[in-house]
Amino acid sequence: MKSIKVGLLGIGNVGSGTFNVLQRNQEEIRRRAGRGIEIAMVAARNTARAIELTGAACPVVSDPYLVVDHPDIDIVVEVIGGYELARELVLRAIANGKHVVTANKALLAVHGNEIFAAAQEKGVMVAFEAAVAGGIPIIKALREGLTANRIEWIAGIINGTTNFILSEMRDKGLDFGVVLKQAQELGYAEADPTFDIEGVDAAHKATIMSAIAFGIPVQFDKAYVEGISSLSAVDIRYAEQLGYRIKLLGITKRAMVDGVEGIELRVHPTLIPSKRLIANVEGAMNAVLVQGDAIGATLYYGKGAGAEPTASAVIADLVDITRLATADPEHRVPHLAFQPNAMTDIQILPMSDITTSYYLRMHVSDQPGVLADLTRILADAGISIDAMLQKEPAEGETRTDIIMLTHQAQEKKVNAAIAKMEALPTVLGSVTRIRLENLS
Amino acid sequence: MKSIKVGLLGIGNVGSGTFNVLQRNQEEIRRRAGRGIEIAMVAARNTARAIELTGAACPVVSDPYLVVDHPDIDIVVEVIGGYELARELVLRAIANGKHVVTANKALLAVHGNEIFAAAQEKGVMVAFEAAVAGGIPIIKALREGLTANRIEWIAGIINGTTNFILSEMRDKGLDFGVVLKQAQELGYAEADPTFDIEGVDAAHKATIMSAIAFGIPVQFDKAYVEGISSLSAVDIRYAEQLGYRIKLLGITKRAMVDGVEGIELRVHPTLIPSKRLIANVEGAMNAVLVQGDAIGATLYYGKGAGAEPTASAVIADLVDITRLATADPEHRVPHLAFQPNAMTDIQILPMSDITTSYYLRMHVSDQPGVLADLTRILADAGISIDAMLQKEPAEGETRTDIIMLTHQAQEKKVNAAIAKMEALPTVLGSVTRIRLENLS
Repeated sequence: MKSIKVGLLGIGNVGSGTFNVLQRNQEEIRRRAGRGIEIAMVAARNTARAIELTGAACPVVSDPYLVVDHPDIDIVVEVIGGYELARELVLRAIANGKHVVTANKALLAVHGNEIFAAAQEKGVMVAFEAAVAGGIPIIKALREGLTANRIEWIAGIINGTTNFILSEMRDKGLDFGVVLKQAQELGYAEADPTFDIEGVDAAHKATIMSAIAFGIPVQFDKAYVEGISSLSAVDIRYAEQLGYRIKLLGITKRAMVDGVEGIELRVHPTLIPSKRLIANVEGAMNAVLVQGDAIGATLYYGKGAGAEPTASAVIADLVDITRLATADPEHRVPHLAFQPNAMTDIQILPMSDITTSYYLRMHVSDQPGVLADLTRILADAGISIDAMLQKEPAEGETRTDIIMLTHQAQEKKVNAAIAKMEALPTVLGSVTRIRLENLS
Repeated sequence: MKSIKVGLLGIGNVGSGTFNVLQRNQEEIRRRAGRGIEIAMVAARNTARAIELTGAACPVVSDPYLVVDHPDIDIVVEVIGGYELARELVLRAIANGKHVVTANKALLAVHGNEIFAAAQEKGVMVAFEAAVAGGIPIIKALREGLTANRIEWIAGIINGTTNFILSEMRDKGLDFGVVLKQAQELGYAEADPTFDIEGVDAAHKATIMSAIAFGIPVQFDKAYVEGISSLSAVDIRYAEQLGYRIKLLGITKRAMVDGVEGIELRVHPTLIPSKRLIANVEGAMNAVLVQGDAIGATLYYGKGAGAEPTASAVIADLVDITRLATADPEHRVPHLAFQPNAMTDIQILPMSDITTSYYLRMHVSDQPGVLADLTRILADAGISIDAMLQKEPAEGETRTDIIMLTHQAQEKKVNAAIAKMEALPTVLGSVTRIRLENLS
């Protein structure tokens, strides 16, 4: 059977990884797929470098439209990243009747609905395993492996940069800024690390997982996004003393608010019990924990980034498409896991409506009645306390930290209680609030 | 589109779980699959109980051949277990042109080659996600998610009963026999626990994973199988002191012996570093660690048994078949991951040829020269020592334990060295040998 011809848009990190793994394992892949998968054309800004990387094994062009318009190309792999050009190229490839594989989470989280609708219309596939958690086959698990389940929630460490930074901050007791600099030197963080450290990248991925878990459109604009740049080493230390670790989690879950079903979709630093398996995912590794009603909790762990791990997912998509290309479009796995005519309109909840537990740290004057005032505010708001830690003031100091872990409470109630606490003369500065999930 | 009609053979634990989850989540599943999946007929020895369980929702028969021969049934789900009847029914269903879903690892590990060949011939699918690690979609990960990779090795905690027993032995310092009895009372171990505790069940699963990882036939008869029944609490304790935990692992890996490629396929208690994520998989949970050349290590964790977790896998297979039933048979996922005409004949190695590290415990007379004799024997055999632990004899005792961890060595060399050690007059009784894997 003749080979499937792939056009590669971009030959940076992931693109060259894809080229290399396809070359190295071509026999293994052919034995699985039943036919060859061949990079037939590459588009790259730097054509000289592309020719060097590919050893002139296939035509290299600088104009990506030559790839998406080429009649011999069966599948277009988009690994250039970014929004506008990527969107145009992907839509054009679809319009030309080509299947698409993309590793571009930003593109899908923002323009996914438009892209999937166009693909549906044309009867082509847009595959995106590489867009979430690199090589870990989490999209496949959610869309296919767990089809029997009503998914209840997903919580994932889906950004390696921030997990590396948090692991280092905890291990070495260092502050955020110091570790970020090290991470940049080691290549774990980019020169402009904003997308990673502010949680945007994780929110793109959580948005995609939310859609395929619950059968809703991708809605990145409704995601709550909070990064790790304002996290202090002191809170990591206190969390540790209380039996918790702080991880940047992408969380999406079903919730009921006043009898109406909603979806939580949020990325923020989160305390999780240290004994949970996912709390022990260290360094740049990723892991996604999924709770389904039939299966209970399952966890998927591996490298969430890097040339070859990401290429592993891109190529798995290529093999899947190779297998399904001849099948009736109505019998393929739906892009967003549910049939396009069977999506729901459950709304994503505003952050004030979500319910979780909280870590609160108050810097207070060490004088009688402080604790009584604080606990009274929480009691009046109906928020109950699960654990507390009060430090003795340091020698010669008259100020100290009080840390409280709350039971589950609605965010708006907690925020209102925090405002009252901050108004107390004995509470100095603002209250530190970090969300806590038991993941049980 | 009309519903897919499923015939259920057996309505015990997994069968009733499948029935219940399909009923409960029928809307969710239909929204994903694009059509309904309906249990149209059930065969059960105890028909009265089956009628009670199904609420008379579909015909119940006592003769399973009525199901496999029924013209309206599209897919047969075999969850009766055992070898002979299951084999006959599965082959008959295939001969009748029906797709098959089975949770029966024993059947596939022993009769898989015959069954897959028959299915291939007839152009039907035999799906078996539920046969390995319950609901965890590990078959899907290996056959589809990791297609880009040359798989290097797999190591899995794939038997919940033994993992529960080992976790309890470690946590509570109890002996095997005591914990086994508790496990039986709690329903974690069967009245006749042989298959679980002697490693047979894990070896069935490892055999299946080995075949799909490396493109070889299933060869249960070549698997090395060693259970946990002779494991002592003292070794678990010493391992802990050295930074290791003991788990029953199913291991399969590529190896080179004298320049010839072979496959290791073995189940045995194994020391693994405590800090590895998989070492922290406790109780009846399962986890499989897979090393691929592109992706590195990935881990898949969840419940490996139980009615609904196993049903989750059975139903995922039903949805997959529903999707692929209309597709060209040549474009489906091959049963054993590789195309039937692209399997290899790499041989499974005899246990004497495998290479791993070892934990050795010698009970010795506490007298001068003992250690020199022992280390000399290892040095002569070219086996190097990675760590050592020598306990002071207890008050009034003249005997003590010496524990050594070796670097990698070939099993036959280690066995020969052990024989020499046991011949020393200072070594009392036999040397305890437990294999050790770093999994890095």
